[in-house]
Amino acid sequence: MKRELSIGVDLGGTQLRAALVDPDGTVLAAQRVRTDRTGGPQGVTVQIHTLVDAIRTDDVATIGIGIPGAFDAAAGTVLGIPALPGWTDVPLADLVTRETGLPCVLENDATAAAIGEWRAGAGKGCDHFVYLTISTGIGSGIVVDGRILRGAGGLAGEIGHTKIADASDPCSCGHIGCWEAVASGTALGRQAQRLAKAEPEGLVAREAGSEPAAAYHVGAAARRGDPSALRLLRDEAVWLGAGFVNAQHLYAPERIVVGGGLSLLLDLMIDDIKAAIRQRLLPGFKPADIVAARLGDDAGMVGAALHALSVEG
Amino acid sequence: MKRELSIGVDLGGTQLRAALVDPDGTVLAAQRVRTDRTGGPQGVTVQIHTLVDAIRTDDVATIGIGIPGAFDAAAGTVLGIPALPGWTDVPLADLVTRETGLPCVLENDATAAAIGEWRAGAGKGCDHFVYLTISTGIGSGIVVDGRILRGAGGLAGEIGHTKIADASDPCSCGHIGCWEAVASGTALGRQAQRLAKAEPEGLVAREAGSEPAAAYHVGAAARRGDPSALRLLRDEAVWLGAGFVNAQHLYAPERIVVGGGLSLLLDLMIDDIKAAIRQRLLPGFKPADIVAARLGDDAGMVGAALHALSVEG
Repeated sequence: MKRELSIGVDLGGTQLRAALVDPDGTVLAAQRVRTDRTGGPQGVTVQIHTLVDAIRTDDVATIGIGIPGAFDAAAGTVLGIPALPGWTDVPLADLVTRETGLPCVLENDATAAAIGEWRAGAGKGCDHFVYLTISTGIGSGIVVDGRILRGAGGLAGEIGHTKIADASDPCSCGHIGCWEAVASGTALGRQAQRLAKAEPEGLVAREAGSEPAAAYHVGAAARRGDPSALRLLRDEAVWLGAGFVNAQHLYAPERIVVGGGLSLLLDLMIDDIKAAIRQRLLPGFKPADIVAARLGDDAGMVGAALHALSVEG
Repeated sequence: MKRELSIGVDLGGTQLRAALVDPDGTVLAAQRVRTDRTGGPQGVTVQIHTLVDAIRTDDVATIGIGIPGAFDAAAGTVLGIPALPGWTDVPLADLVTRETGLPCVLENDATAAAIGEWRAGAGKGCDHFVYLTISTGIGSGIVVDGRILRGAGGLAGEIGHTKIADASDPCSCGHIGCWEAVASGTALGRQAQRLAKAEPEGLVAREAGSEPAAAYHVGAAARRGDPSALRLLRDEAVWLGAGFVNAQHLYAPERIVVGGGLSLLLDLMIDDIKAAIRQRLLPGFKPADIVAARLGDDAGMVGAALHALSVEG
């Protein structure tokens, strides 16, 4: 029996990446280039064609593309991508099919990453799981009752922009009190910059050097035992825990899988996160396992490829 | 063709109610008694048998019971009911089947009400909708992608106990900042009591008379144009709106159906609620319709009956 393969594409504002993926989610080959930002949709379509040709085999049946913005899945049209100017109402699936001769399916990039971790990574075997990518912002993909949660317009799961606090620095969405505004890598970075200013001779400031202090500088200083950095991570863990409790109450996952840059600091915060969860979780709920994502940067490509295979394969 | 009917039971801490329901959700007959609190599970099982016998016909195929507490759906066992002492590990479905000879299915009471409104009330025809019962607390039942959201242990949808604020009066769960703590009928009642104390000659205090001021006194005073009562309702609307925005971001419903006592004041608050939603909703989201529940106290019985029919009928 012929085993159909699929190509997953991660369309990022900086990098354009493609992977050849088998039905188990194993990456057989991958390539990447810098995204042709000035060439717009036409330029990127040519780039996708080149990447696909470099890795395709006769067994490739589909292409799945993860989109970091709004799209119409049924029409295969990109409605808009904040990080890429000029991407308004682009019939990307048709353009790619015309170039490559392969059926093409669009998926939200965070949902694609969730599908990747669900089918081939840290969410494998779960009927109920929440995937969170915590870095600049907080994105998510939700699996409940064995299915991806979509909702009207496919917009369900914007837990990063639920109100969790009265006061905060302004969120990327312009409002106050979103979970993303208090718990993202950007939020930790802001605290790091405040700390570096208050303690210019401190370890966080020295880790940062001439750069603006960021979350990973806090991590580096904390690993060397710096008390100020450890304090920032404790505060961060409390906010992460508060959001994880919300996620449990809202979606009742068995497991919460954490990806994105901040997942690299998860080991430093996990005890405080778990304590924050135990403190607030309603009776009857079992604390979800909190685990780091396993596929790293491949999650989105693997998930987009597997999603395309399940729709078109 | 024989048309199967179902009996829905609403097991409340004060009242025990049963209704004969057809497959469209129409109530053909209903009866109620005061819940036999002292008789415990044995006494209530006898009461259920009596109610069922009073309304059953030859066409009744199933019984569905809405449970205001924790239960194991597969085993048909009630694990515990906060409002009814002595209800620990009760094999209620088996007890009722033994008495009545009918298959019996347990369902969460808020989920049952959501099913009732979804199949036969204000949520009819929606693939994505959120049902909220806002009274003493805030309960919910969620429909996404055409299915009831359940999650691990059937516990998904506890949006009343998600953290939405830094400061609040203590919630019924013992914590600070839950949506229920700032937006439930109880929360509005607390504000009413503060107002009645601060303005003992005011209209809210006079509506309340010798009773503790409550949400419906605020409603009554507001309907007579009282500025202080209207101000409390404006504040309440802002908190309701904040929670509705969270619900949209989390579950992407087309419609939010509001039941419970506070739904009787929805007309007084709807403009402020909609303004609060418009102010915070992410780009790409369409504001959900906000409508009052239609089945009133029957929603739970209708939903429990229809759920039983879908499982056992």
